Amino acid sequence: MEFSSKLLENAVNEVSRLPGIGKRTALRLVLHLLKQPKEHTKFLTDALSQLRSDVKSCKKCHNISDTILCDICSNPNRKEEIICVVEDIRDVMAIENTGQFRGLYHVLGGKISPIEGVGPQNLNIDSLVEKVQNGEVKELIFALSSTMEGDTTNFYIFKQIEKYKVITSTIARGISVGDELEYADEVTLGRSIINRIPFEQSIKG
Amino acid sequence: MEFSSKLLENAVNEVSRLPGIGKRTALRLVLHLLKQPKEHTKFLTDALSQLRSDVKSCKKCHNISDTILCDICSNPNRKEEIICVVEDIRDVMAIENTGQFRGLYHVLGGKISPIEGVGPQNLNIDSLVEKVQNGEVKELIFALSSTMEGDTTNFYIFKQIEKYKVITSTIARGISVGDELEYADEVTLGRSIINRIPFEQSIKG
Repeated sequence: MEFSSKLLENAVNEVSRLPGIGKRTALRLVLHLLKQPKEHTKFLTDALSQLRSDVKSCKKCHNISDTILCDICSNPNRKEEIICVVEDIRDVMAIENTGQFRGLYHVLGGKISPIEGVGPQNLNIDSLVEKVQNGEVKELIFALSSTMEGDTTNFYIFKQIEKYKVITSTIARGISVGDELEYADEVTLGRSIINRIPFEQSIKG
Repeated sequence: MEFSSKLLENAVNEVSRLPGIGKRTALRLVLHLLKQPKEHTKFLTDALSQLRSDVKSCKKCHNISDTILCDICSNPNRKEEIICVVEDIRDVMAIENTGQFRGLYHVLGGKISPIEGVGPQNLNIDSLVEKVQNGEVKELIFALSSTMEGDTTNFYIFKQIEKYKVITSTIARGISVGDELEYADEVTLGRSIINRIPFEQSIKG
């Protein structure tokens, strides 16, 4: 791509370093900003700069927060002895949206993935094990993705805490509500039969 | 979407104002920046701010430029009496990439589109007509998109300049090089037959 302006080239290069944004998309976005009033660019760059410099990681659950303790951890109505272990703050947002969970979270910051060079030492695992050691936790709910990396991470954490008295569970895997059986993959369908639940329980949700 | 941080929410809102970027994509991009070193965000925001405040529009062709006259307009080897009329600087880049054009450009900044509220007065048409009036131009090549808006814009400009002595042409429309006839749409195929060119000429390109 040949640019008529170094400033434009520089901006397109920086934007295209974002994941999933190619040079053409970056050019489209940057030209859009040039057509908008100057304040739009200022609002955008200010919001990103402020976020990057001021945002905190909750010292208890590692969720993204504006304060030292996040809103969830500092809420006295949440049950702090039940902890849901997730990869990422997007998972916290997804579970919060269901309105079904009243415990706290623990954000690992990813999952163990040798291919991507992520080992247990790169994740917030030690602080989780510490909470269990200190007897703060009654139940740990693993809510990681159902992939090899997710299962490996679950298993690694489980091995670290199995000697302590704590209930562990994983979220249920099965056919999505509203899905038709014939389109479900075999593994999911197989698991959903093995882990079947009493009918009376199924009609409560 | 419920956010655990106002700073995060603000950043996601600003990013999702960009065209084609929804809230989820914006969240993914912003979380990516948070995982990268702080300099990445600084480079990105600096590049966008500098571009927005310092970039110029070439006073001759309205191309994006770091200087008052763009590199193309200030190049003494280009033929300034042949002007290619385009909508947008992306079209300049596309034509420059072919290496087939040695004249100058005139960037309209869009096309006439009543639906989007773009009239002739919103485009760089007067300065083009002025160049023709001043006798600077021998040939005008219309290279606008082959849509109703593009055709309307071509026609509007043509009406303004037809009384002056200037050759006008439009870029050829036809079957793309490498394309198979059976997949071409009827209008394109029809035009490519009407505007057929001598065989000797076709094997030169």
